[in-house]
Amino acid sequence: MEVIVPFSTDRPKSRLSGVLDPDERAAFALAMLRDVLDAVAAAGGEPRVLATAPVDGDLPCPVDVDERPLTPAVNAALDAHFDGQTDDPDRVAVVMADLALATPAALGELFAAGREADVAVAPGRGGGTNAFVAGRSAFRADYHGASYLDHRRIAADAGLSVDVVDSHRLATDVDEPADLAEVLIHAEADGDAGRAARWLRDAGVALDTADGRVGVTRE
Amino acid sequence: MEVIVPFSTDRPKSRLSGVLDPDERAAFALAMLRDVLDAVAAAGGEPRVLATAPVDGDLPCPVDVDERPLTPAVNAALDAHFDGQTDDPDRVAVVMADLALATPAALGELFAAGREADVAVAPGRGGGTNAFVAGRSAFRADYHGASYLDHRRIAADAGLSVDVVDSHRLATDVDEPADLAEVLIHAEADGDAGRAARWLRDAGVALDTADGRVGVTRE
Repeated sequence: MEVIVPFSTDRPKSRLSGVLDPDERAAFALAMLRDVLDAVAAAGGEPRVLATAPVDGDLPCPVDVDERPLTPAVNAALDAHFDGQTDDPDRVAVVMADLALATPAALGELFAAGREADVAVAPGRGGGTNAFVAGRSAFRADYHGASYLDHRRIAADAGLSVDVVDSHRLATDVDEPADLAEVLIHAEADGDAGRAARWLRDAGVALDTADGRVGVTRE
Repeated sequence: MEVIVPFSTDRPKSRLSGVLDPDERAAFALAMLRDVLDAVAAAGGEPRVLATAPVDGDLPCPVDVDERPLTPAVNAALDAHFDGQTDDPDRVAVVMADLALATPAALGELFAAGREADVAVAPGRGGGTNAFVAGRSAFRADYHGASYLDHRRIAADAGLSVDVVDSHRLATDVDEPADLAEVLIHAEADGDAGRAARWLRDAGVALDTADGRVGVTRE
């Protein structure tokens, strides 16, 4: 399955500015992207990065550049995918680059769901759409606002069947400091840190449970 | 499977004080509890509430009262469950009362995992433990701090096999205003509101996407 992984090179992860400086945020975003690409490939997907500009760093897959915002860039990629395909087109997935907790198992469930339904969606916390599989060109991306609700409506309006993938790992896009805690917790629990978790540890970002809630601190 | 649902009647959900007053928080907590009890029963579990004091309201299952904090109360309930059982004891689950997104399907996955492994755990966002199934009396609850990590360690130290259930619905305990958005989003997406979502709507709590992130506002 072709798996498009959108990646913004333009001031990524600004909501982490309280913990990481701009260069660090860029390096961390790249570490997460690499983890996602590895997990996609291990789940049997064929990743392609859809970047807003050329990406510094040797990535293990093709990189397409489209400087437009996320929604038109993804829709153009969907159009390119479905172009010329007719009755039973190949599926295509779109998986966000900041799903640092994504595992081959979680992505494998998404891909399996997408082979059965016309559309499979993994909602993000806060109503975003962290990943989807589309099997019909009638499905369109719309990432503005609570995109999960919009994507459900778009699929329903087009008469497409939908399966929702219930995964904490796929629901966790890493945007805010609390999400860094999530990366560190699961790396520690599983005894298996990916690049993103190792990058955080090397940068001195650690779990902080001092006030009863779990957050991060930087040494 | 016996399913213990701990419920605190003492100033519940104080982190929602910016949106709901104390009486409203108590009523909302009770609506969530009823949703969880229904989902547990629909998943084939036999719920018992473990409350810090008698609960106002006619609940559809037995209520045990233990005024101690969560950890000793749950461990006493585990002891009572396993007392006199020997080689292959019946499983017991502990499911938090504020999992307003829990569905029979998500709980069914937890129960199924708990029938295979010695311990099945559904981590909460932020490193909590939102639900577990224990098949061995050697497993102990410890809800302080990042309890998911503690529970993984407790199981490993006791030589118990562990399965982790990856579910956004089970990872979402409703503590903060952002969690209310989660309740409303999934009720709207599924066209199927439980008591908690209906209670929020009746109280005028609605989704707010004005600033680009999804939160709640109150009319």
